[in-house]
This record gives sequence, C-alpha cells and structure tokens, in this order.
Amino acid sequence: MKTPSSLDFLTETLRRLPGVGPKSAQRIAYHLMQHDRDGAALLGRALTQAVERVRHCNLCNTFTENPVCETCLDSERDPTLLCVVETPGDQLMIEQTLTYKGLYFVLMGRLSPLDGIGPKDIHLDKLILRAGDGVVTEVVLATNFTNEGEATAHYISETMKARGLKVSRLARGVPVGGELEYVDAGTIARAMLDRRAT
Amino acid sequence: MKTPSSLDFLTETLRRLPGVGPKSAQRIAYHLMQHDRDGAALLGRALTQAVERVRHCNLCNTFTENPVCETCLDSERDPTLLCVVETPGDQLMIEQTLTYKGLYFVLMGRLSPLDGIGPKDIHLDKLILRAGDGVVTEVVLATNFTNEGEATAHYISETMKARGLKVSRLARGVPVGGELEYVDAGTIARAMLDRRAT
Repeated sequence: MKTPSSLDFLTETLRRLPGVGPKSAQRIAYHLMQHDRDGAALLGRALTQAVERVRHCNLCNTFTENPVCETCLDSERDPTLLCVVETPGDQLMIEQTLTYKGLYFVLMGRLSPLDGIGPKDIHLDKLILRAGDGVVTEVVLATNFTNEGEATAHYISETMKARGLKVSRLARGVPVGGELEYVDAGTIARAMLDRRAT
Repeated sequence: MKTPSSLDFLTETLRRLPGVGPKSAQRIAYHLMQHDRDGAALLGRALTQAVERVRHCNLCNTFTENPVCETCLDSERDPTLLCVVETPGDQLMIEQTLTYKGLYFVLMGRLSPLDGIGPKDIHLDKLILRAGDGVVTEVVLATNFTNEGEATAHYISETMKARGLKVSRLARGVPVGGELEYVDAGTIARAMLDRRAT
C-alpha cells in the first residue's frame, strides 16, 4: 500500500515546522486534504510570497518588504536613541507601552554559545555600524532578562562602551502589581540594590 | 510599527493549521523567515502540489493521485472482502499485520452527531454503492473501538445487513501481552462474553 507521493512530500515537508513530529505532520496533512483545501492552497501561496518578499531592514535588521522599514523611516522618532531587542515581538511589546520614541535594532536572536549562536549570528557587525552612525548617542539594551539575554546585553554593552556610546538597560525590579511574598528572592535582591530615592 | 503584509498574511494563514494558535503561528513564521527559508519554499510547493494532485479513490475513497488507487487495482487481493476503516492510517496498520488480503473502504471520518458529522460526511452512499457491486460478500468493520467508532460500526452494520451482506467486526478482548490485573474491567467483561473454545 502506497501513499500518493505528493501527500508523502507534504507530510515530510510539514516536519520542518518547529514542534511538528511525524504523527502531527500526518495529522495536519490529512486534515488539510480532507477538510481545508482552501487553507492549504492559501498557506502554499502565503509561504511562497513571504519567501520572495520578506527581507531584513538595512538599518534595524527587522523583517520588512522594503530596503528600510517604516519604523526607521519615521521622522518623528528620536534618532539619538537606539533600543536593542531580540525579536520583532519584543519590539512590538515596547511600542505598545508608548514610553519610547527612539529607533530600534532587532538582533533576531541572542548569544547562546551552547547552541552555537555567536556574535555573528546576532548581526553584531551590523549593530556596530548602525550605532556608530554619529547620530546615535545612547544604546538602550532591552534583551530578555534570561541568562542568555543578560549575556547578550553584557557583550553588547562592552562593545558599545568601547566605542564611546552611552549604554543603558531596562530597569529590573518588582513587577507592577507584584506582591513581595510571591516574588522570587533574586528579583527582590535586585530591586533592593537598585532602590531609588523618592 | 507595522509588520510586512506578506509576513502578516503568512502568520494569519498558519493559524488554519490544526492546533496552531496566534502565538505559535508567529513563532513558526519568524522561525521560517529567519532560519529555514528553504523549508518554507519547499512547504509552499508541497502544499500547492498536494492540493492540485491529491484526490479520493473512486472505489475505496482513500487519498490517491489517480482515479483508482493502487490497492484497489491490485489483482492479487480478494475482491469479496471489504474492510471498512476510519482513516488511511488505520488501513496502514491493518496492512502491516499481513493478516488481511481483501480490499478496503476508507470513511475519512466517523459518525459524530455532536460534532455535526452525519452519514453524508463519512461517504456512506459511496460505501453502499461500493459494497453493492455484486462481488463483495463480507464487510469487515474495523472502525475504532471508541464510542464514535462503535456507533459508526453499528450504523454501517445495519445498513449492510439490510442489503443482504455478511458483516463482521474485529474481535475485542485482552490485548496480546496484556496482564489481567492491569486490563480494564470492560475489556475483560467483553473477553469473557466472547470467549472461544480451544
């Protein structure tokens, strides 16, 4: 008994999606062929189109369809501030707070030597060029507060300081709405050390 | 800040895959654009190709690229036996046992009134035509032993018996290697009722 080759090909290819194993790949393929052919055709087009059109912004490295993205072209923004984030999703979160009006640089990753992700993979040379444009005066590090994010922030901080730029990092402390009893000791320790005069 | 429209379109479309919500859709889209553009292009082609080529076998209703699938065309098989299964995966499991040499009918589903899946959705009219070809003498019901599978088997059994066909069902009982202490009471009850002379 043979599965049609185009169905086999689809199942094999679906396994390249992150988190999809052989069983889910087959389930998804059957589902699409049986119940959602329109969806399958649409997804096929969406993938082909995205591969053709999506590229990285020459300035901030985020995903865009143009040489330079809309955010970088926005003349209302403060060009002396450059906020470094790991992903476009992180950038979106910061935008939603409406507290930052500068520009961005998106690493598209974080340093993770154990996974073989070094400075090259997070486009540090591009960041050095970008931050050294003579306009940027402060680099705001907004990588995640995980071990890898912290290591990335530290590495970038050293690189930027060596080039005479001011470097800052998002404040650490007790989250808004946080009850001390339920906050971990590391966070409280940090908040105590970083306490501010009121 | 705007996401490129082709990336938005991709994220939206990925949500049509079963089990993919907004967060996973974004994660998958970013992963493909950042780390696996070849995979994305390949998957795009695989989907388009499958939608174009995969159809249902005119006889057994399974997925195939031809009017009639290879299994149905196999002249070595016993055309008087017709085994009814829910999915191509179930058919594959039965094939692997090497205990059955007849033909198949694949329902591509099961009766499930609560989900609005009635006799029409599991191609019962096609099954009635197929089983009534004058050659088939016995219909072997191999739907799952779940509530829905049992209901489906019962429904098909009544329909087929009304047309003068012999109907059988896979035997229920203690699984091979099963220890009575760990087998559920329902299965043991069934095995006791269906006990066989040795």
